[in-house]
This record gives sequence, structure tokens and C-alpha cells, in this order.
Amino acid sequence: MLSSALPTINILKQPTSSAWVEQAISNLDIILLDHAQCERKAAGVALNLIFRYPSNAKMVRELTKIAREELEHFEQVNQWLEDRNIPMRPLTPPPYGAGLKAQIRPKEPDRFLDSLLVSGLIEARSHERLGLLATHCPEPKLAKFYHGLMASEARHYGTYWVLADTYFLREIVAKRLEELAIIESELLVNLHPEPRIHS
Amino acid sequence: MLSSALPTINILKQPTSSAWVEQAISNLDIILLDHAQCERKAAGVALNLIFRYPSNAKMVRELTKIAREELEHFEQVNQWLEDRNIPMRPLTPPPYGAGLKAQIRPKEPDRFLDSLLVSGLIEARSHERLGLLATHCPEPKLAKFYHGLMASEARHYGTYWVLADTYFLREIVAKRLEELAIIESELLVNLHPEPRIHS
Repeated sequence: MLSSALPTINILKQPTSSAWVEQAISNLDIILLDHAQCERKAAGVALNLIFRYPSNAKMVRELTKIAREELEHFEQVNQWLEDRNIPMRPLTPPPYGAGLKAQIRPKEPDRFLDSLLVSGLIEARSHERLGLLATHCPEPKLAKFYHGLMASEARHYGTYWVLADTYFLREIVAKRLEELAIIESELLVNLHPEPRIHS
Repeated sequence: MLSSALPTINILKQPTSSAWVEQAISNLDIILLDHAQCERKAAGVALNLIFRYPSNAKMVRELTKIAREELEHFEQVNQWLEDRNIPMRPLTPPPYGAGLKAQIRPKEPDRFLDSLLVSGLIEARSHERLGLLATHCPEPKLAKFYHGLMASEARHYGTYWVLADTYFLREIVAKRLEELAIIESELLVNLHPEPRIHS
């Protein structure tokens, strides 16, 4: 019901491969651990943007909401870890995040635009992959949990897009998003050997 | 009613001077701006600790709650700024935070203990100063807002203390807290010329 009101995510240049789905479904515990890290990182990224651009009131308002929601999800994923007796531990991240971060141009205002778009792309990919987990997860309760989170990731993608559109000319946003979206998909062409949300 | 269930904050070595109260009350708009920054920073500090020590499940749980609450306060303070037509803008921080941070010993597990205690002391001081604002603020609605936030800061102080007590021997915690509390008060002996929550 909810999803009809959400923005369509058609920015991803390549859909996730079935190899990722197989890898993830065979390693649900590690995926949960990595998912907790992703939620925490997403909250951190939103806070860093607020820190870096405090004068952009609309951005501050929207990203505070996102950060709060990511922390709520972080708590929920941690509850799943606890229920499954999976001790929290650090995991090495896949190259995806660093690969995208490397695309953020250092000079302003490029840095601001790229930061918004990279975050948006990560949210869009998370939305797609949580959807795949919701569809393919053999545990109904966990599948339902993933389904519940999907909508937020789509909303977050929408927010980052709207923010980019607020602070930059639409044609500049569209052009850069196109470039970054191609790179985003390229980063996922080869399945990372360690199961991760963005492997 | 609530406050009777809260831990007593008797760790502060020196009470805040009346000079700070006068400075703050004469500069309520700047204090609100700085307060927003403090709430955002407090959320960031909690997230950083979660990031640095992800295996400490109890800490992760408690600090996630704190981070969420700080972000909620950040939103509330931002609403006050909006209602008063105060545009968000960065303020130079007073030397207090950096002065305390400099006391965090770099080697583990000292670093972990000191990080928890420094955060606890900042929360304790914030509790005291928000209480002073609640008492002395000439605007009843704003005074009430500060009063509402006081309880959280006291709870946060308690949480940081309990966490230190969870991961370290009580006598080690008590000794180090005593040392840091002396420094914390010393950092506030001379009123910083710019009005801030921790000037």
C-alpha cells in the first residue's frame, strides 16, 4: 500500500545479480551484522552533512529525520542480532562505499552535490537489495522485517534527490547523477567474495 | 516528579558562576544556536563510540538510545531557531570541548574509559546549565523547554557513568572521574567571552 506513494527508483543502471541474492540468503547472519553497520554508517553520513552544511535549514531538517530513522533501524537490526545470539563484531567493508566516496569531488559546491547523490544512490541500492531479501528470505519473520525497511530506504533516496534538486540546477543534478549511477553499478559488477549488503 | 528517579549529579567540582548565567540570559539567541550544535555533536560522539567499540553490546544499545534522543533535541532546538527567525550558522566553539578531549589518553583501554567519562562530564555540566537556563530564562515557554531537556542530560550522564562502571573496575573509574572532573571545572573558571552553553 505504502509503496505506491514512494518515488520510483529507476536510477540504478544495473539490477542486482542473482549471485548476490544466493550469497546473501546463504549468509543471513553476516548480512544482518553488515546491515547493522550500514544503518549506523548511514546515520553518521547524515550527521556529517549536517555538520558540514549547517546553514542549509531544509537539508538539516530532512537529514536529522533520516539520521533518527537510521538509528531506529540500527536498533532493530541489533535486536535481531541479539535474538539470534550473533555477537556484534566489526566486519571489513566491501569496496563499494569507498569506491563511491572516491567519486566525491573535493571542491565545493561539487562536493556537496556529489555527497547528496552518492548517499542517494546507496539508499536506492539498499532499497533494491532489502527488497530482494524480503522476497527471497526463507524465514517469514525476517522477510517481513526487510519488507518493512524497504519503504524507508526508498524515501531516503527520494529525500537526497529532492535536496540535490533544492540546492542545484536540475540539469546539473541529472547529469552528475547519471555519471555516478554508472559508476555505482560498475562497482557491483563483480560480486565481492565476502557477503555484504553491498557486496 | 521524574527528577526524583534520576541519579544525583554531584560530580561537578565547581558550580557554574552567575557571570555565565548573566551572559547566557543576555544572549538567548546565540545560546540556542550553540545548543543546537551541542545536541548534534553529542549525537555524533555517541555514534563514534558505537563505531569504535561495536562489540560492546550494552554500550551500543545505550548509546544508540542517547544518539536518538540527542537528535530529537536537535530537532526541537532547530524548531525554536526557526520560530525565532534565527538562521542556522556555524559558531566557533568555546575551548571547553577541545580542552576535555585533550585529556583522553590515546592508548586503550584508557581511551575508552576517558571517552565515556568525558562525555558523562559534559552531560552533567549541560544538565546543570540547562537547569540554570530553566530557572533564569525570562521567557516562560523557553524556560519550560529547558526544564524538559534537563532530565535527559542527567539520564545521559548516568548512562555514561554506568557504562564506565560496566567495563572498568569501580575504583579505577572513580579515580579517573575525580581527575577529569577537576579539569572540567578548571576549564570553566574563566568565562569565555563568546556566549556558549559551555562558555
